[in-house]
Amino acid sequence: MQAVRICDKRIWVEQASRPRRATGFARIRLRLAGICNTDLELLRGYYGFAGRPGHEFVGVVEEADSAFWVGKRVVGEINLACGSCDWCTSGLGRHCPRRTVLGILRHPGAFAEWLTLPEENLLEVPASLSDEEAVFCEPVAAACEIQEQLGRLRGERVAVLGDGKLGLLIAQVLQLGGAQVHLFGRHAEKMAIAEAVGVRVGGAGEFDVTVDATGSAAGLATAVGMTRARGRVVMKSTVAEPVSLDMAPVIVKEISLVGSRCGRFAPALRLLAGGKIAVRPMIADRFCLGEAERAFARAAERGCLKVLLTP
Amino acid sequence: MQAVRICDKRIWVEQASRPRRATGFARIRLRLAGICNTDLELLRGYYGFAGRPGHEFVGVVEEADSAFWVGKRVVGEINLACGSCDWCTSGLGRHCPRRTVLGILRHPGAFAEWLTLPEENLLEVPASLSDEEAVFCEPVAAACEIQEQLGRLRGERVAVLGDGKLGLLIAQVLQLGGAQVHLFGRHAEKMAIAEAVGVRVGGAGEFDVTVDATGSAAGLATAVGMTRARGRVVMKSTVAEPVSLDMAPVIVKEISLVGSRCGRFAPALRLLAGGKIAVRPMIADRFCLGEAERAFARAAERGCLKVLLTP
Repeated sequence: MQAVRICDKRIWVEQASRPRRATGFARIRLRLAGICNTDLELLRGYYGFAGRPGHEFVGVVEEADSAFWVGKRVVGEINLACGSCDWCTSGLGRHCPRRTVLGILRHPGAFAEWLTLPEENLLEVPASLSDEEAVFCEPVAAACEIQEQLGRLRGERVAVLGDGKLGLLIAQVLQLGGAQVHLFGRHAEKMAIAEAVGVRVGGAGEFDVTVDATGSAAGLATAVGMTRARGRVVMKSTVAEPVSLDMAPVIVKEISLVGSRCGRFAPALRLLAGGKIAVRPMIADRFCLGEAERAFARAAERGCLKVLLTP
Repeated sequence: MQAVRICDKRIWVEQASRPRRATGFARIRLRLAGICNTDLELLRGYYGFAGRPGHEFVGVVEEADSAFWVGKRVVGEINLACGSCDWCTSGLGRHCPRRTVLGILRHPGAFAEWLTLPEENLLEVPASLSDEEAVFCEPVAAACEIQEQLGRLRGERVAVLGDGKLGLLIAQVLQLGGAQVHLFGRHAEKMAIAEAVGVRVGGAGEFDVTVDATGSAAGLATAVGMTRARGRVVMKSTVAEPVSLDMAPVIVKEISLVGSRCGRFAPALRLLAGGKIAVRPMIADRFCLGEAERAFARAAERGCLKVLLTP
């Protein structure tokens, strides 16, 4: 089968054998995948990554232990957890110290014709959702994670920095959750996507919560400057290099900098099924797997939104 | 009167006029003052400071609007707040955007024979407390601030990094509050001060909360590495230069980095009056105001604990 490979900051497409399914796992045939900024960072050397990337996907189960799953259209949680440690038993398998992570950490990713995942990671995609919507489940879950960590932020003034893929989703999710969201970006046409759900563009004053989704090392200092004393800054940017930050305002204003990663799929899938989040206008381009190198180059273009990969 | 002055990274003692007392203020005659790491950082250029430093003191009120205060031995909250903004009315005047700060921000400090503070900032020192104990009220309040921000941490595993003045106080305060505190430092004889209240020295495994009181730019990365997923790192170090930090583990482990500054005096004074915190073994040396330059040099020596200044 065709599969994408990253090694030593290079990317190519190779012929690989179809993955074998271990007990408890499903073998899934890819229908659609999405390129995330984390994938671009992996190519730049984040994590010293070498292997098959890809963690945003929609597919159909071809084989599984349970007949229930066969033929189902699914998305899947990306953390493969041990299931028995304290983290796992408390429902936080995404922090399991023995976890592997689809396309990121020791589990081959979704940029291939077939992939495998444990059956317990799977969620059926409602019939009303298109592949093009469902493929956003993982980044929407990452946006929802902010609410799991900080609460719904109902009525709070929230600034979201960055009108990239993740920034647009975060702004929409938090606005729909009841926050007063102000989005700061550079592209009026992108910010218009979030304005459709009531997100404000720009704004003055200090914010209760600021989310850095700029993807740049400079975003964090900007976020700290915009946040009120005792406020919270959510770090959503995956940046490969160390960040240099003047900690004096963080300490003087007693700000909390909150690292935030991936989230639960179930609430994200519900939000998508509700049809309230505008994801289709975020699709910028589409390539087949064999054109992965071009697809990654396209996704890395300044201002490019979601690039999809098809088998 | 004699007063200490810092300007352009130099320190000297000058003859200054005795400060005039504005309405609502008390004029206080100094009895004892303490040199804090923040003072050393001010001398190194933190905040671009120029003026009279000093914010840890015990004194006697000589003049005030209210006869109640005259003759009383006092310590004083260091933030001079407007009293009318939202922060002030919610009891958080230490975040008032119009505040000045004793010896740090636009209000002359305590390293002088006389100082002034608003009467509402004053707290009477219980007769049972010596000057040498009461002068620790400000740094003990800074340690208590962690409990105000994070809760009592009862039963939680807490690592405190740094066996300097603040680290020793934080370790004691959190241990007395019910946390299981592990202190990490380099000097067995200093750590023994905290061991007296049950603090453990060193320890393995990950911690729920880690407090960086190393005073070094490298402390934060160490703290992040020692903290469990979803745990909290408290930043108590005042470092003049920007800190370079790999944010990947902060994001992957979803750690919160919590800036923490100064705290309320009342709980600190109660703790000191209870006699449970060992502060006297922390006194390393004592100089008179006229020897301030030597006193600062002594306080800046590696491993030196509290240096006191007398009028």
